[in-house]
Amino acid sequence: MSDPFVVVGADAAGLSAASKFRREAPDRDVVVFEKGRWISFAYCGMPYFIEGRVERMSDLLSLSPSEVSERGIDLRRGHEVVAVDPDREEVAVETTDGDTFTQPYSTLLVATGGRATTGPFDVLGVDGAFTLHDMDAAAAIDAYIAEPDEYDPDRADVSAVDRERVDHNAARRAPETAAIVGGGYVGVEMAEALRGRGLDVHLFQRSGHLLPPFGETVGDRVEAELEATGVTVHTGTPVDELVAADDRIEAVAFGEERLPVDLAVVGVGIRPNVELLDGTGVETGPADAILTDEHGRTSLPDVYAAGDCATAIHAVTGEAAWSPLGLTANRAGRAIGATVAGTPTPVGEIVGTAVVNAFDMECGRVGLLDEEAAIEAGFDPVRETVTAGSRSGYYPGAAETDVTLVADRDSGRLIGGSIVGADRAAVRINTLATALESGMTAAEFERLDLAYAPPFSPVWDPLLVAAKVLNGALDEWSS
Amino acid sequence: MSDPFVVVGADAAGLSAASKFRREAPDRDVVVFEKGRWISFAYCGMPYFIEGRVERMSDLLSLSPSEVSERGIDLRRGHEVVAVDPDREEVAVETTDGDTFTQPYSTLLVATGGRATTGPFDVLGVDGAFTLHDMDAAAAIDAYIAEPDEYDPDRADVSAVDRERVDHNAARRAPETAAIVGGGYVGVEMAEALRGRGLDVHLFQRSGHLLPPFGETVGDRVEAELEATGVTVHTGTPVDELVAADDRIEAVAFGEERLPVDLAVVGVGIRPNVELLDGTGVETGPADAILTDEHGRTSLPDVYAAGDCATAIHAVTGEAAWSPLGLTANRAGRAIGATVAGTPTPVGEIVGTAVVNAFDMECGRVGLLDEEAAIEAGFDPVRETVTAGSRSGYYPGAAETDVTLVADRDSGRLIGGSIVGADRAAVRINTLATALESGMTAAEFERLDLAYAPPFSPVWDPLLVAAKVLNGALDEWSS
Repeated sequence: MSDPFVVVGADAAGLSAASKFRREAPDRDVVVFEKGRWISFAYCGMPYFIEGRVERMSDLLSLSPSEVSERGIDLRRGHEVVAVDPDREEVAVETTDGDTFTQPYSTLLVATGGRATTGPFDVLGVDGAFTLHDMDAAAAIDAYIAEPDEYDPDRADVSAVDRERVDHNAARRAPETAAIVGGGYVGVEMAEALRGRGLDVHLFQRSGHLLPPFGETVGDRVEAELEATGVTVHTGTPVDELVAADDRIEAVAFGEERLPVDLAVVGVGIRPNVELLDGTGVETGPADAILTDEHGRTSLPDVYAAGDCATAIHAVTGEAAWSPLGLTANRAGRAIGATVAGTPTPVGEIVGTAVVNAFDMECGRVGLLDEEAAIEAGFDPVRETVTAGSRSGYYPGAAETDVTLVADRDSGRLIGGSIVGADRAAVRINTLATALESGMTAAEFERLDLAYAPPFSPVWDPLLVAAKVLNGALDEWSS
Repeated sequence: MSDPFVVVGADAAGLSAASKFRREAPDRDVVVFEKGRWISFAYCGMPYFIEGRVERMSDLLSLSPSEVSERGIDLRRGHEVVAVDPDREEVAVETTDGDTFTQPYSTLLVATGGRATTGPFDVLGVDGAFTLHDMDAAAAIDAYIAEPDEYDPDRADVSAVDRERVDHNAARRAPETAAIVGGGYVGVEMAEALRGRGLDVHLFQRSGHLLPPFGETVGDRVEAELEATGVTVHTGTPVDELVAADDRIEAVAFGEERLPVDLAVVGVGIRPNVELLDGTGVETGPADAILTDEHGRTSLPDVYAAGDCATAIHAVTGEAAWSPLGLTANRAGRAIGATVAGTPTPVGEIVGTAVVNAFDMECGRVGLLDEEAAIEAGFDPVRETVTAGSRSGYYPGAAETDVTLVADRDSGRLIGGSIVGADRAAVRINTLATALESGMTAAEFERLDLAYAPPFSPVWDPLLVAAKVLNGALDEWSS
């Protein structure tokens, strides 16, 4: 009997790989080590749980441990892989009970995910100060927001939950004013969630506009939308300190100012969990994520990596990029499962497609929007932004939709774009993602046969209007 | 001074061409002959006007005659071009006043559009029987539906309107029961419109399902949606006759049955207006539409054609196809205007992208859905249909979305697809249209980096779920 396929981490990438592997190679063994108690949770759903739009925490679980076992996967929770020996092809494991052992592998998949960074902020041991990057934090924030006598313990109806932490937070008096530190998508989603729970919400963003990866046009419209719904947005405002008193958050300090708050959520970014491979000599890429090739292989023999800890190949640049998102993890996991089972399957490239919702505003982005990033990748970016209606002008419900498109001056190739608007704007980004992945030029894009019917689009879809203007700019330069 | 650029027809294709030509070649002349009084109207908006969602008919006009003149276009309404002499490069014109003259051209654009066919049904001279293919018909139907003392004449607030016909219809008592003959997109949109006006609506479709070009899956869900909103759908039911009494529609007869109605709208199809070129030897294509090349040129020297009277090149088959839709007309007109002005510009290919709305149901289709059409084009079609959620399962508002994808067995290339669902389904067809135009395979499509966020999509977009299943079917065949 050969050594098993060993997977480290039981979330999107790890369980997708294990499941696909077992389906394709039912006679071979797969072991999944998970250091914690949670598996297969929908990270992206946490703000909606906190908001109350999702009623039960169990709704956010895709797979229970018993379902995983039924698939023939040997899942070991409470098992932390603490070292990898790539020469001997084995890993060292420590259990929460204090046991240690080594496990040989035929193939190893590192799917250790990422973790929230907290910047200079200490959120440990202070009531009312949180980061949001796991289910226990989500359960704690939810409990903290409720009045002690109104909290429903069934909200956190998953056995894995840190019940002590939930109970502790549920017992605190409910907050009235919240500061969210960081205006990325977690910050924006949390602003809506906390507003939905009736709090007075302040959102702080270090740079000049929200959602930096979505560009200024999107950031500005989201800021206006948040302000219109009662959120106070502080852009260009780095928070200096979370101020606590009596072990409870009391204020956030910025510049000369100090805002009294009784809840603070820090969402300033995430970073890949790569420490497991320290000392193995594995090659790393952007953000120090583990470098992988088109099949998800690392530079170590028989070692793969996938999900938030790994890079992926960007279809526009052809280079490794780090884009820790759900589809990338699921897709890479599934492909690696098939490859390890014997059918070489590419993990797929990425184009940095992302969407986010802010109250009624839908936002999307793809590719190289940022001028510096485009230049660094060897392009000469030309960018145009248009505002166009989402439907025929005479049809009720048309919404102003802003589209930005970026192309390379020499080749005319589309390299990035964004969209924001209240009427079906977000899913429109997929059209652009498809064009970017197929290497389309702006001229080809302008001639696409896109859908037209008054309830959904004007004759010229906003994306086509933007392409028309962009091609005008490209023509001017070339003539 | 050289002879002018002569355009026949002042709707989407003709005026787009004339406008672009004048912008690009401000020193040259363009004359547009329009046989009627209407110009530049939004055909696709007529059902929404009749429904009352659009308040004034003038809302449906994109350009007024004076705006056209301000662009430097010599617009002649009431001027019918009755003959083309391609050897002498001149056209014969008859005016509504009875004048006749010849007009030489340097280049000619035939943009004569299409017209509604009525099949075997005589709708002339009978109150309450209509086809819907021009603004006068829309105004007449709208007036006919209102009670005589409740009709607002300002609804038809355009000077071009046939006021006598409107007044005649407004004076008739309001109908209670309507039959719509033909379950294509006009029929489906009219069913919603007439239901919105409070009528008891019966929709008759000759074949087994509604919206034949959208395929059975879409047709069946639209039928269910219409039935749920109170429309009676009769599929597989050819109407034999419109029965009139005292010059007013009285019933529709089908099989052994007869349904009393006091309104009948016939929407059984349209055909291209190509008679102007009879006898010139011009080559024609599918549906007898005027055959055009990638720049919109016909087989006659210096004669172009665009819009509903002309073919376009289908990106999947590489062959001429007839797809009379708004974007195709606007796009071809604009490109021809640029070409005639001196900048050769492709009109763009089509992939048969179409969308339609039926109450809460959004539908889209693209490419070769029909098995016979695919085989005829030389493909060996493999088709799969899936039902998938439009959002993460835990996020409220997720709607069952049916996606059909068709690929060619040998090459794996995607050749067609459809989508139907209540949550942002229609605009998703653009992703597939883009993939078809770029010649993507089903395997490449499955690896697209599409957007994921719980309010908009599950981790695997319904399109990706369908691609996964389709690739499974393709793999089975190849192994």
